[in-house]
Amino acid sequence: MTNLDCIECFVRQTLGAARDLGLDEERSTALMRRTLLMAAKMDWRLPPPLMGRDIHRAIRELTGDSDPYMGQKIKATDRALALLPEMEAAVADSRDPFLTAIRISIAGNVIDLGAKLGDKIDERAAFLDAIDADVDEEAVGRLERAVLEAGDVLFLADNAGEIVFDRQLLELIGQKKVTIAVRGSPTINDATIEDARRSGIADRFRVISNGSDVPGTWLEDCSDEFVARFEAADLIVSKGQGNYETLYTMDRHIFFLFLVKCPTVAMMTGSPKGTFVIEEKER
Amino acid sequence: MTNLDCIECFVRQTLGAARDLGLDEERSTALMRRTLLMAAKMDWRLPPPLMGRDIHRAIRELTGDSDPYMGQKIKATDRALALLPEMEAAVADSRDPFLTAIRISIAGNVIDLGAKLGDKIDERAAFLDAIDADVDEEAVGRLERAVLEAGDVLFLADNAGEIVFDRQLLELIGQKKVTIAVRGSPTINDATIEDARRSGIADRFRVISNGSDVPGTWLEDCSDEFVARFEAADLIVSKGQGNYETLYTMDRHIFFLFLVKCPTVAMMTGSPKGTFVIEEKER
Repeated sequence: MTNLDCIECFVRQTLGAARDLGLDEERSTALMRRTLLMAAKMDWRLPPPLMGRDIHRAIRELTGDSDPYMGQKIKATDRALALLPEMEAAVADSRDPFLTAIRISIAGNVIDLGAKLGDKIDERAAFLDAIDADVDEEAVGRLERAVLEAGDVLFLADNAGEIVFDRQLLELIGQKKVTIAVRGSPTINDATIEDARRSGIADRFRVISNGSDVPGTWLEDCSDEFVARFEAADLIVSKGQGNYETLYTMDRHIFFLFLVKCPTVAMMTGSPKGTFVIEEKER
Repeated sequence: MTNLDCIECFVRQTLGAARDLGLDEERSTALMRRTLLMAAKMDWRLPPPLMGRDIHRAIRELTGDSDPYMGQKIKATDRALALLPEMEAAVADSRDPFLTAIRISIAGNVIDLGAKLGDKIDERAAFLDAIDADVDEEAVGRLERAVLEAGDVLFLADNAGEIVFDRQLLELIGQKKVTIAVRGSPTINDATIEDARRSGIADRFRVISNGSDVPGTWLEDCSDEFVARFEAADLIVSKGQGNYETLYTMDRHIFFLFLVKCPTVAMMTGSPKGTFVIEEKER
């Protein structure tokens, strides 16, 4: 559900996108007027990522650019790839590799150009801080057991760059067991097949498209193929707030991994902004 | 002129007003949808306080309350009145009473429920910090000379409570010389005739209404009587951002006194948020 804080956030994200992308005044104001009208008319019972989709469709239309964040996604991916050897070592040297891999994966959720946690993303600091971040270790244990028991795991990826942070966790889930789902087409800095390829993830793991440009996983908007895969999976691991906001009411066994980035999700989870969340949703 | 930061601020102020006034969810969402539609359709060449007027008209209509901030205005006035003896003493004991009175007057501009500087207003802290606040002393000197030379001074008041902070400055301008203009009817926490009475200001000074419910001074919206008075005044002293935003393009001799409260006005004045501004506008 979208609430009044989300509305303010839509307007703030529109302003941020106009600036991040260097839109001129005419396009910035046109974009803002469209966001205001869409927000006024939106069905607020729907989750906020649907509005995110519409804002970013408007941006792509106004700029005539099918992937306006491509440059930023490439940079985030490159910065994350530069950290990969250190991430591998951190997990290999860890007394609890699964726990460390989970921490690193959640830390990667800082790479978000929508609901930003801060003005500037520092992937290196995020990785270093993650090593001893507070997480619910009991929930990590439950996820580890669920992975062992599952025949196949559907991993719902989030952003470009972030999927590099997911790499160690994906390795531990196992190449044979896991399938990674990415967005069907560019939307903000969310990972697409192209971004998965650029990260080296697609060379090593099965990657499928969800067929949608919602910065989340809204099944009504996804391809039939993806929905069938979603329904059939033994276990779903979901990254990021957008996937959480669109899926938390689902009658499915899902582990949500994300950073809390806004007051609305802080209220939903009962955890303050910046918290590393592992939330298990039972069937 | 209204810019994209102002649009975000309208939405934030709407949210803040809905919460400050304890509106239920139905009214809060109705109010937010109206703000979004009005903002989408607004002529953004107009100054932001016109949108403030429309938001607060919507609030009064939705609540059926002609003065929803009355309780908060009374409290702010009472808290300011409790400080009055200290303010009098500070000015009386000062080596430069006019400068001290200016500092106190600008400090009072913190009492703003629209473009808030912080979550909570602490009138006492504002007064204590004001005593040695950084102000443009050269501009204070120019204002003091302009007051001496003027036959009559029109003082454009801003908020309830704040007018108590203006008291010492008004005394130094002189009871005979000064006329105080307040809003024509309630709008946010802006001072009206009733608030001027409650502050004791109306017992001691001439107070007139500007005939408008814009939280600023938009002459097109003011009464003919006020406009004539505005045109005829030798000197105008204007308090607060709202009056500045609606009057800074006027061809009039005006001294604007206010605290910088937002990035837009920070850009207009070249002074960061929180600055005590004295800006002289020449004819």
